[in-house]
Amino acid sequence: MPQKIIIDTDPGVDDAMAIFFALRSPELDVIGLTTIFGNVHTELATVNALRLLAIAGRTDIPVAEGAHDPLTGPFEGPVPYVHGDDGQGNVNLPPADNRAIPQTAAAFIVEQVMAAPGAITLVPIGPLTNIALALRLEPRIAANVKNVVLMGGNALVPGNASPSAEANIHNDPEAADIVFGAGWPVTMVGLDVTHKTNMTPEHLDAYAQADNPLAQHIARIVPFYRAYFERSFSGVKGIYVHDSSAIAYVIDPTLFEVERWPIRVATQGISRGKTWPALPGVTGPAWEGRPLVNVCVGVDADRVVALELDRLT
Amino acid sequence: MPQKIIIDTDPGVDDAMAIFFALRSPELDVIGLTTIFGNVHTELATVNALRLLAIAGRTDIPVAEGAHDPLTGPFEGPVPYVHGDDGQGNVNLPPADNRAIPQTAAAFIVEQVMAAPGAITLVPIGPLTNIALALRLEPRIAANVKNVVLMGGNALVPGNASPSAEANIHNDPEAADIVFGAGWPVTMVGLDVTHKTNMTPEHLDAYAQADNPLAQHIARIVPFYRAYFERSFSGVKGIYVHDSSAIAYVIDPTLFEVERWPIRVATQGISRGKTWPALPGVTGPAWEGRPLVNVCVGVDADRVVALELDRLT
Repeated sequence: MPQKIIIDTDPGVDDAMAIFFALRSPELDVIGLTTIFGNVHTELATVNALRLLAIAGRTDIPVAEGAHDPLTGPFEGPVPYVHGDDGQGNVNLPPADNRAIPQTAAAFIVEQVMAAPGAITLVPIGPLTNIALALRLEPRIAANVKNVVLMGGNALVPGNASPSAEANIHNDPEAADIVFGAGWPVTMVGLDVTHKTNMTPEHLDAYAQADNPLAQHIARIVPFYRAYFERSFSGVKGIYVHDSSAIAYVIDPTLFEVERWPIRVATQGISRGKTWPALPGVTGPAWEGRPLVNVCVGVDADRVVALELDRLT
Repeated sequence: MPQKIIIDTDPGVDDAMAIFFALRSPELDVIGLTTIFGNVHTELATVNALRLLAIAGRTDIPVAEGAHDPLTGPFEGPVPYVHGDDGQGNVNLPPADNRAIPQTAAAFIVEQVMAAPGAITLVPIGPLTNIALALRLEPRIAANVKNVVLMGGNALVPGNASPSAEANIHNDPEAADIVFGAGWPVTMVGLDVTHKTNMTPEHLDAYAQADNPLAQHIARIVPFYRAYFERSFSGVKGIYVHDSSAIAYVIDPTLFEVERWPIRVATQGISRGKTWPALPGVTGPAWEGRPLVNVCVGVDADRVVALELDRLT
């Protein structure tokens, strides 16, 4: 039986790759996409989610639009220098015919999880606002999800949105602190592993040579995204594999090395958005009583890259 | 010509080891000790500094007492579970006959540095309050020190006073941010290297077998300190080499691998006391225009330990 997943997403070039990776993996059954601000504004995230499902021929999958702003303040704005003004590498996609369902992301998540207790895995690959709102709407989802596998955070490595913080968590630290503290099964797939997982130019070339519309779309949008990495990170060729790493974890957790630590999210000052683990031996009042979560600290990067390429090319 | 150094210290078991290591190193000329709160209250730090010089037969070296509290609030209190109620492993040392000079630590530092431009290296191995106060008293010391080599901070590794912060910086983050931003030559010898440098029980045994009063004192005080490490850090036998690593750097910088990054110190919330570097590729407004400092990220730990043992046993 494939695992039922809901991907909460802000597409985004690597979101597109992750969604397509999931759609072409027989271990997974994508029962819905929910949208969030981050790489783009939420409205555009919804448009892009619908477009991606149309490209994949999967307009049967519902899309529910999520929050337009973080829990405690306005969205700081998208990152067009990373994903393009359109969030898809400035390729000017035509509008899709499909439409979002008339339900908020949080309501959709609650409805689906409560209708299938223990069956659904949430895979947030953007800021965690919708997930926190779903918990607020129906706290019992904490006891009824199968898993929460999120792309975000940096436990033992520097940030990418700031020196301290990873972009998804940085965009709503208060929501992230709620998600890490909810006492449900959470796995953090963050920069500790995604910055060790490099899809090289040679890997990326394989998309262009693959005869399917999903790979062809990736081949169109990835050069813009790749240019961002090569401009920003000295010595990097190609891209780091962020969002698809969460999909890889859901398919095969043995690809990753995991530690179990309590996580608090910094919300103040220059550390805003930092995910702080308390390692054995050194704790503090803020970490006392917090649930342990899975934190990915190691990865078999070659196998993650090979798995995604195998599914998409 | 030996390098003239002033050690700013809160003795402290490992402060005693560092002071003795410096006193027995022909490359160094210890021209004064200044005292600070941290491992103990400042008054006791002064008493202990005087006692240590008496044990070493170096009552010719002046001791100047420093600040009793951080720049912006009261001292949170000493750590008797690490260093003992007396800061020296609860060995009940007799009082010494020597006395502190009638000058504050900050005034002493300013006077010495301005009297010998380019000649003096400051070696703070406690919270950085006195150093910030000296900069405030006479900003020209920034252009007139030879070096500032401090034990403190954690760039790419977790903290020890909290999950986020190292103890010395945690005790006065505002002072540390001033010191890292002053535009003088600063080297941070922090947990990135000291938590890689382990003096094992076998190493520690050498002190007891050495026929000199400095090694004999270390042998008396170190068991209490060692018990703290073995209780707190799973798998550790012996101690981590904190304060003495700064002395080793002054003697021989080639023992360390150094990166040059700007550092900001977090002052708010659960990150208070974290030293944040901005690595190439990812920066933020708080780091713009900040001077680069030397951050020790690698160490030849075996050689550091061998150097200290060679000098003291």
